[in-house]
Amino acid sequence: MSTRPTSKADTKAAAKITPISGFPEYLPSERIVEQRFLDVIRETFELHGFSSVETRSIEPIERLSAQGEDTDKEIYAVSRLGGGAEDDARWGLHFDMTVPFARYVLENAGKLAFPFRRYQIQKAWRGERPQEGRYREFTQADIDVVDVGQLSPHFEAEMPLVIADVFSRFPVGEFVIQVNNRKIPNGFYQGIGLTDVIGTLRIVDKLDKIGPEKVKAMLVEAGATDAQADQCLALAAIRSTDLGFVDEVRALGVEHPLLDEGLESLADVIRTGMTHAPGRLVADLRIARGLDYYTGTVYETQFVGHESWGSFCSGGRYDALASDGKTTYPGVGISIGVTRILGLLVGRGLVTASRSTPAAVLVALNDDESREGAVGVATALRRRGIACEVAPSPARFGKQIRYAERRGIPYVWFPGAGESGDEVKDIRSGEQLPASADTWTPPSEDLTPLVTRVDG
Amino acid sequence: MSTRPTSKADTKAAAKITPISGFPEYLPSERIVEQRFLDVIRETFELHGFSSVETRSIEPIERLSAQGEDTDKEIYAVSRLGGGAEDDARWGLHFDMTVPFARYVLENAGKLAFPFRRYQIQKAWRGERPQEGRYREFTQADIDVVDVGQLSPHFEAEMPLVIADVFSRFPVGEFVIQVNNRKIPNGFYQGIGLTDVIGTLRIVDKLDKIGPEKVKAMLVEAGATDAQADQCLALAAIRSTDLGFVDEVRALGVEHPLLDEGLESLADVIRTGMTHAPGRLVADLRIARGLDYYTGTVYETQFVGHESWGSFCSGGRYDALASDGKTTYPGVGISIGVTRILGLLVGRGLVTASRSTPAAVLVALNDDESREGAVGVATALRRRGIACEVAPSPARFGKQIRYAERRGIPYVWFPGAGESGDEVKDIRSGEQLPASADTWTPPSEDLTPLVTRVDG
Repeated sequence: MSTRPTSKADTKAAAKITPISGFPEYLPSERIVEQRFLDVIRETFELHGFSSVETRSIEPIERLSAQGEDTDKEIYAVSRLGGGAEDDARWGLHFDMTVPFARYVLENAGKLAFPFRRYQIQKAWRGERPQEGRYREFTQADIDVVDVGQLSPHFEAEMPLVIADVFSRFPVGEFVIQVNNRKIPNGFYQGIGLTDVIGTLRIVDKLDKIGPEKVKAMLVEAGATDAQADQCLALAAIRSTDLGFVDEVRALGVEHPLLDEGLESLADVIRTGMTHAPGRLVADLRIARGLDYYTGTVYETQFVGHESWGSFCSGGRYDALASDGKTTYPGVGISIGVTRILGLLVGRGLVTASRSTPAAVLVALNDDESREGAVGVATALRRRGIACEVAPSPARFGKQIRYAERRGIPYVWFPGAGESGDEVKDIRSGEQLPASADTWTPPSEDLTPLVTRVDG
Repeated sequence: MSTRPTSKADTKAAAKITPISGFPEYLPSERIVEQRFLDVIRETFELHGFSSVETRSIEPIERLSAQGEDTDKEIYAVSRLGGGAEDDARWGLHFDMTVPFARYVLENAGKLAFPFRRYQIQKAWRGERPQEGRYREFTQADIDVVDVGQLSPHFEAEMPLVIADVFSRFPVGEFVIQVNNRKIPNGFYQGIGLTDVIGTLRIVDKLDKIGPEKVKAMLVEAGATDAQADQCLALAAIRSTDLGFVDEVRALGVEHPLLDEGLESLADVIRTGMTHAPGRLVADLRIARGLDYYTGTVYETQFVGHESWGSFCSGGRYDALASDGKTTYPGVGISIGVTRILGLLVGRGLVTASRSTPAAVLVALNDDESREGAVGVATALRRRGIACEVAPSPARFGKQIRYAERRGIPYVWFPGAGESGDEVKDIRSGEQLPASADTWTPPSEDLTPLVTRVDG
């Protein structure tokens, strides 16, 4: 692998440099916010005992394209520029982590320990029309638990706790995880005599967009009676932060075994949330989340005050995350739309980093001859985990301090500046004190860039 | 963004599940080795004050394809499956970090602080014929320093120190960073009267493959005299871990101002290496590293005992990393072939992880009713940074312990097992002791998976 080929292209193509819509890039200080968010996600997933998996970026097109015509069009096909016909359009870039993970489970089933708890934080690509909050290249952070044959229902209650833990460790602001169970509408619709469950769900799912009157009209048009349509709307209006939703559903007077199962299961999830993540979970019986593959609990997440951006974190339970025809692997998972969240938080300046470099210290240079000593100071600081750089040139100290200021580096180190040795200056306060590279440590809030919420 | 679409494809395409050659994937315990390596790289780059940049995965094809026909063929073109003609083959996946970084510098020049120290750890794609140590999808970890107009030469000495620091923190085994300066052969060839510098370099670069006799024959065929060819071979044979190479070159009796510059510059790099990374740098006058873009120091890195795998980490100095026609941005950088190194270390089992999950503790379950208490224990452990999971079901304790064993989880926690409260068992030694979730901490070597070299 020739690791550093030429970049001669630059001069030639310089005139054409433009961003590509839907493919976001960050400046260094913004990237620090992204990294911190990714670090928090990973750290939290690992604390909860999820193992990392990373899959290749491509899958065979036929594996990606069984999702329906609309999705197919959004797949990015990949082919070698110099390839023959056999190379063309065999592969596409994955558009989520679920399809590749399902394939990974089937491919490695004999080598994995089930129930298998995995997280996966990777880029995905989707040829959508770019708009605010939607991207063509984006990072997703998924957790899933997958088992063989049967999956214990308590995992459905565990998923939102992990997500609540992530969002409590990063300044995203207020959020609500909305939970439903697909068995509730499924049983309820059957209980009131509507047999086209998917068709009904599809219409009710439009509530946020078109409102209850139009939904009712569509339900009636599809064959429901006025009373059935009203019952569907009544169910969808139920929302509670405690177990109150059970009685509210019961009060509608509908009976069906699937409905009972769904209510019991959702009650377990909400009860667990009330104990371990109080105030974060809401039973919201309007949530449908994908129409034909989730079979149990479903999740969506909204940031309070930014509901119009839609769900930033969604998922649910599949009876068949993967299947090879003989063995079926049920799973439950949830996915954080990292790029989408950052598009809001960074794009609107709600979260910022205190500097544009990891360096906490700039080691100043008295003259070119003292570079070796300055590198020695830097090496000693690094050995103790303090990120730093040596000034690029022995310019006037004022200029070296401005070099640090422009990058937000809080400390400048002056080798041999004091009577007894080195000194270090906090360039924000101007305070300069004697210090030894073998013992000095900055306050912990200065050790790495501070990532903070701006609006409070 | 619908974050979790269906995976219905799986059943359908299950029969076709096969790895894709050149697109490596790891099992969870191998992935832990990869993550640790990436963590060490990132941590070291940040300690040295490099800022992270991540660029989009695609670039316009014309930006990628100015590298010559051979490289062009290896570019993966990307186009939307449902796209019209205007979508086709406009974009390709980047095949390194240098082309995108050069574009990023030009695009954001007004917002970056120069000299700009950046690192970039990302996937790249190249449609090479797959073979051991070569991949089509691979991760590169680059550092570069880029400045405006002029770049201080000390950065050329700094790059290999950072790399030596990375490799001293991860069990890669013995390695040697080979350094040369392109001005040395350039000046030397001109000094002995050979004007086709690139042509000569191209032939001498084949030394490792075809040996000195064939190289000499080719040089003579290209127009060199016997004596000139011998001089070229004599230069290429020089190699020293100290400044001895200067006298060895001088002894060849060739004079040229560019040669003087090159020797002085390489002496600075080696001298810095002798002080700050003793034993790691070698002046090797045979190294050419890319033929028409490096203009100063060039680097290659080999693992001792694995020389046949070639260089794992290469780079050099460019006079024009990027240019917009008005302003030129010189740079120096070096790139770690992460996937290639892991292909060796993981592929041959030289480095392994002690477990397949981040979890250090499995919290056992007495019965279904005690799940809430077990989750409470897990929450308390996580709050103090101890990764854990709760047993999936209240099976017999022997079965729960085997669950931990299969994953390499070292500790099983038994809530309420002792007279005064909980107990924790080290399942390797069998020792079981009283413990409180608010105070117990595993030894640091058990807190995260141990990543160790197997061959010593």
